[in-house]
Amino acid sequence: MPIDANADIEITGFAWVPDFARGYVRDLRPRWACEEAGIGYRQRLLDFETAKGEGYRQEQPFGQVPAYRDSEVQMFESGAMVLRIAERSEKLMPRDAAGRARILTWVTAALNSVEPFVFDLVNIDTFNKDAEWAKLRRPQVIDSLRGRLSSLSNWLGDKPYLEDDFSAADIIMATVMREVSDDALMAEFPNLIAYRERCLDRPAFKRALEAQLSSFSAEPAMA
Amino acid sequence: MPIDANADIEITGFAWVPDFARGYVRDLRPRWACEEAGIGYRQRLLDFETAKGEGYRQEQPFGQVPAYRDSEVQMFESGAMVLRIAERSEKLMPRDAAGRARILTWVTAALNSVEPFVFDLVNIDTFNKDAEWAKLRRPQVIDSLRGRLSSLSNWLGDKPYLEDDFSAADIIMATVMREVSDDALMAEFPNLIAYRERCLDRPAFKRALEAQLSSFSAEPAMA
Repeated sequence: MPIDANADIEITGFAWVPDFARGYVRDLRPRWACEEAGIGYRQRLLDFETAKGEGYRQEQPFGQVPAYRDSEVQMFESGAMVLRIAERSEKLMPRDAAGRARILTWVTAALNSVEPFVFDLVNIDTFNKDAEWAKLRRPQVIDSLRGRLSSLSNWLGDKPYLEDDFSAADIIMATVMREVSDDALMAEFPNLIAYRERCLDRPAFKRALEAQLSSFSAEPAMA
Repeated sequence: MPIDANADIEITGFAWVPDFARGYVRDLRPRWACEEAGIGYRQRLLDFETAKGEGYRQEQPFGQVPAYRDSEVQMFESGAMVLRIAERSEKLMPRDAAGRARILTWVTAALNSVEPFVFDLVNIDTFNKDAEWAKLRRPQVIDSLRGRLSSLSNWLGDKPYLEDDFSAADIIMATVMREVSDDALMAEFPNLIAYRERCLDRPAFKRALEAQLSSFSAEPAMA
């Protein structure tokens, strides 16, 4: 447990990715949720060619990982599947309507109100570092992201987690914070750095990360 | 109905926005969901100053609209509140676990796998049209968005909606499609244009749009 070849839950991942992506592929999120909840899952590893093929696109229309299935449902989108897994465990989401609504709200906020701004910066710093447009654009991207981080920092204050207890929302938000590619910007928000560390120090996160890292083969499969 | 001063549901909106934003503010989404479900809501209109203030940020940490409350829960994020409203009506989401998981999946996909790419283009075409970086960057943004639209178009095929019946997922995806600012790009995907029209032709959408448009005052409030 949690990786268990006979588990009800199946999560797809890649059999190989380049070094810079290792530990950041999004199957990390449902792996982490399963580790927190103590729920087993089996992994199904794909090469890129299979992921882009017509067959797999019935499971994941954008040709990405992860896709998810259990005995009841078939899904894609890491945020959605973390909410699905959270329905099985109070460790990830309260049972009452008010508490559930907060977790759904914060998962959505992480995915639509914060992560797109983080991606804008990743797109510059990781994929377009030397492009002329990126140099011209970067200051505005930093300012926009700063605004979002500032709002998040104000909300968090000295609370340990987004809501009362650690939840599915922190899995998504902490993985988003982990993608911020400018350390000086993050340093403006010490409580966000502490929050990120608090989440990533959890044994369940470390097990999920190790599970992803150890799933990669040394070399890509030959076509 | 659905705007009803005594309704259980409260949705916030802006009392005034510039012309280019009218009809596109995100309270449109929960308004539409309420109209489809025939569930009443009351609106609470804010000026920008109030929305950015500390008090409102307890409801909406990013200082935006909409925020939402009903007798049980308090939320923000339009995608999350549409899912909340959908729990009250089979017109927006099936009752079975398998069907619910599909709607959650597609709402998340629209918000995290499609809308960020649409925003990239809006950011160029609406807010930075004459900037040097925008001219250099635009072809790549078009290519990335084309990839997402192509995947979505392949999934949709000749289906009328993302899943069997119209649902909360189509509310989010159709409002995302409505934001695509390049008609020539959309024209590459006739089934997406037809899908968008099919959704936006619904009487409930038209009522929601009219409700938002008629909520704006002619002039911003004086500070």
